[in-house]
Amino acid sequence: MHFTEKDIAAMESRYRAALINSVSGFKPANLVGTADHDGNTNLAIISSVVHLGSNPPLLALIIRPNPVERHTLDNILNTRCYSINHVHHTFIEAAHQTAARYPKEQSEFTATGLQEHWVEEFAAPFVLEASVRLGLELREHQHLRINDTHLLIGEVVLVDVPSDCLGDDGALNLSAAGTVALSGLDSYYETRRLRRMAYAKPDQPPRALE
Amino acid sequence: MHFTEKDIAAMESRYRAALINSVSGFKPANLVGTADHDGNTNLAIISSVVHLGSNPPLLALIIRPNPVERHTLDNILNTRCYSINHVHHTFIEAAHQTAARYPKEQSEFTATGLQEHWVEEFAAPFVLEASVRLGLELREHQHLRINDTHLLIGEVVLVDVPSDCLGDDGALNLSAAGTVALSGLDSYYETRRLRRMAYAKPDQPPRALE
Repeated sequence: MHFTEKDIAAMESRYRAALINSVSGFKPANLVGTADHDGNTNLAIISSVVHLGSNPPLLALIIRPNPVERHTLDNILNTRCYSINHVHHTFIEAAHQTAARYPKEQSEFTATGLQEHWVEEFAAPFVLEASVRLGLELREHQHLRINDTHLLIGEVVLVDVPSDCLGDDGALNLSAAGTVALSGLDSYYETRRLRRMAYAKPDQPPRALE
Repeated sequence: MHFTEKDIAAMESRYRAALINSVSGFKPANLVGTADHDGNTNLAIISSVVHLGSNPPLLALIIRPNPVERHTLDNILNTRCYSINHVHHTFIEAAHQTAARYPKEQSEFTATGLQEHWVEEFAAPFVLEASVRLGLELREHQHLRINDTHLLIGEVVLVDVPSDCLGDDGALNLSAAGTVALSGLDSYYETRRLRRMAYAKPDQPPRALE
């Protein structure tokens, strides 16, 4: 099936949203936890977390200024901290439900039954049920005028991972951690590790590590 | 296992790179195809493609200024077009091998055996073996000074997908398409779709579509 620029422009908007959200490939499924200065919490499923660099340890994410993600954006800009929690296969339904347009005063923790987990001196809530949890501090915010989205760059200041999923070399086995992958707007996938590849060198053929 | 900001800063650099590259969750596995003005081609595995919006259809990606990704960056800035090709489970080895530091004059197509596929009036090569292929035109480029990386925002102007993986509503079934997911620097995963969730609404419990 072949679509040109004209075909894409002529698509019905929900069809185009479903297609274009699918074509980038698999996405990470993360819940972003925040709170306002009064401690009112917010939780939102975000599929746009992307690795920016490891030294300093930076992750970026894209936030849309719609009513759902706006609360998350406001909290991050106000408190400059947020948590990123992997969606585990046991709570896909609750994670997806955080995308509903709850009013600002209703916490998605209460609405979905996911539990808040607080870490001393960190002003954003984590998800208790998540097996991989990160704490981030905002380092940079940019409004991307091209389509009115927001790029947030944060530094990872806390990492909580299951020790039995962490390799000797620092790599996490995400399928062992129960982390799911996302595609499009609403499809959740479990995964199975096929192989780990050795560091690629020009003068050596590709080689699997495990 | 719990790591604080100090623990992360004190990590051996390869350990930190493996860990921080893993903690964002699953990543898309894509090959980015480019050419210079003389038609010399380049192919690079990139795990940082992220959906920015569907109207206009925009994808962003992050490129590091290292010797491998520099050729891709230069070609995109010069020709303002590039292809994004999903890594299929049948060519993980060749896809991973594009990360080796080949000199600029050696094409990763030739080096890995992946075949170029050209589409009329589009100045970047696609990967013939890929089942999902996108053509993009550069719309915005930013140097992110925070860690010397580059943010490229492109508009999707061509989409080529297997018709039997495309739902009536525009959503692609990526596991049916054979697309793999990536984690960390080198781990490749096959996937199985667990469920598709209905659009979330505040006054309705979460519901699976299929």
